[in-house]
Amino acid sequence: MDLATLLGMVGAIGIVLAAILTGGSGLVFVNVPSILIVLGGTFMVVMIKFSLSHFFGAFKVAARAFIFKLENPEELISQIVKLSNMARKEGMLALENEEIDNETLQQGVQMLVDGNDHGVIQAVLHKDLQQTVDRHSWGAKVFSATGDVAPAMGMIGTLIGLVQMLSAMDDPKAIGPAMAVALLTTLYGAMLANMVALPIADKLTLRKSEEGRIKAMCIDGVLAIQEGQNPRIVESMLKAYLDPKKRAEGGDESAEAA
Amino acid sequence: MDLATLLGMVGAIGIVLAAILTGGSGLVFVNVPSILIVLGGTFMVVMIKFSLSHFFGAFKVAARAFIFKLENPEELISQIVKLSNMARKEGMLALENEEIDNETLQQGVQMLVDGNDHGVIQAVLHKDLQQTVDRHSWGAKVFSATGDVAPAMGMIGTLIGLVQMLSAMDDPKAIGPAMAVALLTTLYGAMLANMVALPIADKLTLRKSEEGRIKAMCIDGVLAIQEGQNPRIVESMLKAYLDPKKRAEGGDESAEAA
Amino acid sequence: MDLATLLGMVGAIGIVLAAILTGGSGLVFVNVPSILIVLGGTFMVVMIKFSLSHFFGAFKVAARAFIFKLENPEELISQIVKLSNMARKEGMLALENEEIDNETLQQGVQMLVDGNDHGVIQAVLHKDLQQTVDRHSWGAKVFSATGDVAPAMGMIGTLIGLVQMLSAMDDPKAIGPAMAVALLTTLYGAMLANMVALPIADKLTLRKSEEGRIKAMCIDGVLAIQEGQNPRIVESMLKAYLDPKKRAEGGDESAEAA
Amino acid sequence: MDLATLLGMVGAIGIVLAAILTGGSGLVFVNVPSILIVLGGTFMVVMIKFSLSHFFGAFKVAARAFIFKLENPEELISQIVKLSNMARKEGMLALENEEIDNETLQQGVQMLVDGNDHGVIQAVLHKDLQQTVDRHSWGAKVFSATGDVAPAMGMIGTLIGLVQMLSAMDDPKAIGPAMAVALLTTLYGAMLANMVALPIADKLTLRKSEEGRIKAMCIDGVLAIQEGQNPRIVESMLKAYLDPKKRAEGGDESAEAA
Amino acid sequence: MDLATLLGMVGAIGIVLAAILTGGSGLVFVNVPSILIVLGGTFMVVMIKFSLSHFFGAFKVAARAFIFKLENPEELISQIVKLSNMARKEGMLALENEEIDNETLQQGVQMLVDGNDHGVIQAVLHKDLQQTVDRHSWGAKVFSATGDVAPAMGMIGTLIGLVQMLSAMDDPKAIGPAMAVALLTTLYGAMLANMVALPIADKLTLRKSEEGRIKAMCIDGVLAIQEGQNPRIVESMLKAYLDPKKRAEGGDESAEAA
Repeated sequence: MDLATLLGMVGAIGIVLAAILTGGSGLVFVNVPSILIVLGGTFMVVMIKFSLSHFFGAFKVAARAFIFKLENPEELISQIVKLSNMARKEGMLALENEEIDNETLQQGVQMLVDGNDHGVIQAVLHKDLQQTVDRHSWGAKVFSATGDVAPAMGMIGTLIGLVQMLSAMDDPKAIGPAMAVALLTTLYGAMLANMVALPIADKLTLRKSEEGRIKAMCIDGVLAIQEGQNPRIVESMLKAYLDPKKRAEGGDESAEAA
Repeated sequence: MDLATLLGMVGAIGIVLAAILTGGSGLVFVNVPSILIVLGGTFMVVMIKFSLSHFFGAFKVAARAFIFKLENPEELISQIVKLSNMARKEGMLALENEEIDNETLQQGVQMLVDGNDHGVIQAVLHKDLQQTVDRHSWGAKVFSATGDVAPAMGMIGTLIGLVQMLSAMDDPKAIGPAMAVALLTTLYGAMLANMVALPIADKLTLRKSEEGRIKAMCIDGVLAIQEGQNPRIVESMLKAYLDPKKRAEGGDESAEAA
Repeated sequence: MDLATLLGMVGAIGIVLAAILTGGSGLVFVNVPSILIVLGGTFMVVMIKFSLSHFFGAFKVAARAFIFKLENPEELISQIVKLSNMARKEGMLALENEEIDNETLQQGVQMLVDGNDHGVIQAVLHKDLQQTVDRHSWGAKVFSATGDVAPAMGMIGTLIGLVQMLSAMDDPKAIGPAMAVALLTTLYGAMLANMVALPIADKLTLRKSEEGRIKAMCIDGVLAIQEGQNPRIVESMLKAYLDPKKRAEGGDESAEAA
Repeated sequence: MDLATLLGMVGAIGIVLAAILTGGSGLVFVNVPSILIVLGGTFMVVMIKFSLSHFFGAFKVAARAFIFKLENPEELISQIVKLSNMARKEGMLALENEEIDNETLQQGVQMLVDGNDHGVIQAVLHKDLQQTVDRHSWGAKVFSATGDVAPAMGMIGTLIGLVQMLSAMDDPKAIGPAMAVALLTTLYGAMLANMVALPIADKLTLRKSEEGRIKAMCIDGVLAIQEGQNPRIVESMLKAYLDPKKRAEGGDESAEAA
Repeated sequence: MDLATLLGMVGAIGIVLAAILTGGSGLVFVNVPSILIVLGGTFMVVMIKFSLSHFFGAFKVAARAFIFKLENPEELISQIVKLSNMARKEGMLALENEEIDNETLQQGVQMLVDGNDHGVIQAVLHKDLQQTVDRHSWGAKVFSATGDVAPAMGMIGTLIGLVQMLSAMDDPKAIGPAMAVALLTTLYGAMLANMVALPIADKLTLRKSEEGRIKAMCIDGVLAIQEGQNPRIVESMLKAYLDPKKRAEGGDESAEAA
């Protein structure tokens, strides 16, 4: 689970709920028609902008991105180095019994064991990388469009409420509550856009580049194993995929060793 | 018919209508002068920004895009492969009796049957591709401009209503209904922009790239048939035009077969 | 006269006037100090952003663009083809008596008759093309800046009106009319920006590319005549400047003829 | 003095003052704490965004740009041509007694007289050109940031005023004047941004390209004099720096002469 | 300490505090739930957009940037020139006892003393440069996102307050203070965004390029010392990193000397 997203989402919604509940009953903040017009209206309008498969795919990619944790690239590197050692000493078939968690790496090692050639492995794994990047791109676009549309639907809901209230304004005492209801859609729209849709779009964009980088690292590792490269060279090559910060820690040592 | 557009448009308008009707009579939301100022004013201003032919062409291209469904690229590929087989075995003239739905493919096959040479076929079909892309671009630009202008005309209408109301404010009881009418143009402008014009502009942009991709695939197919290419090579070449997702399904098989 | 601009401008202003007049006396919408602050203030601020010659040049280029109609590129092509025929059969001097409406073409033909060489003709005509593009660019920039500044001046005017009204608020009955007057500058600013300045900026940008294309076509034609090119080749070369739509109509015929 | 800036600034402020004074006493528009919060607050925040030297340099460059007039490029060209003639006939030392107003040209001619070589002259003059462009760029950035910050500080001031007014709302009669004062900061912010900061930023950007062009022309002229080029060639080379409009006037003549 | 940031921050907050305190008791401006919803909510939402390490790293980089002063590049140049002289006369080991404040320079000189070769020194120091640039980039992104989110959270807080106030509107006298509290979150959001987050983001972007330039200069200096370059050449080479303004002062002298 992505910790920053979990903490941030729970924290932000918790703070807003606290603000609502300390101010009295929270019931005045729940209005089913208002929820319908903002949530339903926004999703309908976003659906017009995309195809059905892009639209529903976006939710799946978001859920998957937050439930599955990104693998630690350093552990992956040491696993690839270990595999590279095994392959050199015992041959490709020895890799068959290794337990591998990373999907891309597992698929690549299976292809190594099956004796596929270089071009085929590269093509299949790159297709998989491209799909991941694509999926996250479409996900980010759908959530970003949601963040644009939600405040507009909130405003449309408030305008409808205001017109209804103003056109039937006989009891001045009823103005307050009616106006409160009218403002709810603007509140819902602002919350949906700023606390949910736009942050998720930004996180998916970040996730796209991180997942892409890890998958690219695995592909390079698998191809290096096939070429029978020296495990130390494999290691230093894969470290180029690490964050500059983490790379430097290892880098200083190797520089001193040089 | 484009399903996402149909569902989204009907759903969004349905939700707004439900919100209006559950709040009392919907009649207060209908005001002919307000409709005139937003709808008419927006179209007039958008007309200034374009030429008459671009302006009216935009509606035609939008209507056409939503009524005619995009062809399934996989069916097209198998039809092209079939035609390629026929052409190799029985010659170009055998293609004459094939029933072809796709316009570009049909035009291309007719030109093959007529014995036109490579350059002529390529030139004519590319012109047609360029026109399609162009038409969708202008359509998207006109609807995007509509989405910019409509809220502005809504605000102008509301300001006119407010000035009229305020300058003749003798009966405080009349303020409510007059203000309701003044707000209607803002509501109309927000709805025209956010629920109609901008989503259609985005869908036309998406449609432009999808239709362009299918037409480009058909052109490549026709030219490959003329060159007498091996149908299996034709198939794998055309699959590069498919979505990465769909391509991978086929791709894995061919990789396993390799 | 540019028909879309004429229709759109008259229509938009007519619709707004109708909305004003059907709501009662239009006199409350006329307030000389408000007009002065929005129109005068906007022009003064825009003047700061440019030089005097760019500023006044913008009005001239806008007026010229709307009064003079764009020439029909197809008629120009047939005239150039005719001139090309004459030049081949009777020599350059025969072109002297031809009546030519298009300025660029006329200037170019005059230079042909005078026996100028290729480089000189190209240089002089390209300078003229560059000037036209430049003039329209500056025009579009000035009107676009006007569209940015006008709503700001409208808001400044409204704020001044509100401060005056609120600081002297002794008679509650006077609030309505005073507020109406204060809102007028916002209305004027929104109208000046959205119904006049921004549409004209967009039209000048469109016009820039269209006039540039016609002038470039004439230059190519004049140079081709000088080179004594075959009139049929001249025609097909110039048709590349036509809209894809119109080009295709001619293109299909030539393809069938091929 | 830059005429468009002077006219525009005086005119815009004059129009606003007229609108204020015709509406009654102008004293309600002067509120020292409000001026402090908008002017002082904006400058403080802009200072955070830049270094002290960029911040104060911006005012100097703005003042200098508006006080010193741009030289007439045509007069400069004829002076350079004259110098070029003198240098060819009487040698470099003859240039010493020429009175030259343009700084860059004067510095360049002095270096010619001193017998510096080509590379040194080019390096020193280009450094000076780069500094001018840089200075105007930083100036434009500071004023553009001021135009962003001022409306925000105006809004902050108005919110402070509203909170103070609303939290102590016992006398309904005091609401009007208190609200008027609260709105003053929004008015100041809008005026500072739209009538002063943003127009000056735009003018400095324009000025940057114009001064840069004139300096580049002078550098080319000085280097051409050193190379002992034919004065007629020097002239036609420098005319490429003129506005297309002015260039064409001269250009047509030379074309006719060709 | 960065003087412009210190002065600007203290000045801007001082001006706002003065405006608050001169208007009566400042206590009405302190509301703990409002502070919680804006500050806490904004940080939670920003956290969703980034990873935890980016988020917390941003505060560290901002604190560090404002506490440590940028070194004077001219002093650094003279120190590097001095080191270069020593290295030529007394050998690399003589550099060991020099006191060096700049971290990059110190690290580089230590590596020179240790006798590392050119490639290793370059790699290690460039890694360090890349990390600094990266750290500032992420810092600027986090603060820029804070500047986007804070006004949105302020609006959400105000909407919650308005809904609570309007839905329980029985005592008209209580409206004023309740509305004042509701507006506080908008005020906090505007202040957090415009007076803190956005200016810091801009300053970090500026700092990124300045620190990067100084580090790059040190790296060039260290490498030049290793190559045993002439100290005068080292000096003129490093001066290319100075601001054009400062460079010119030195540049004129060297030009005169040439």
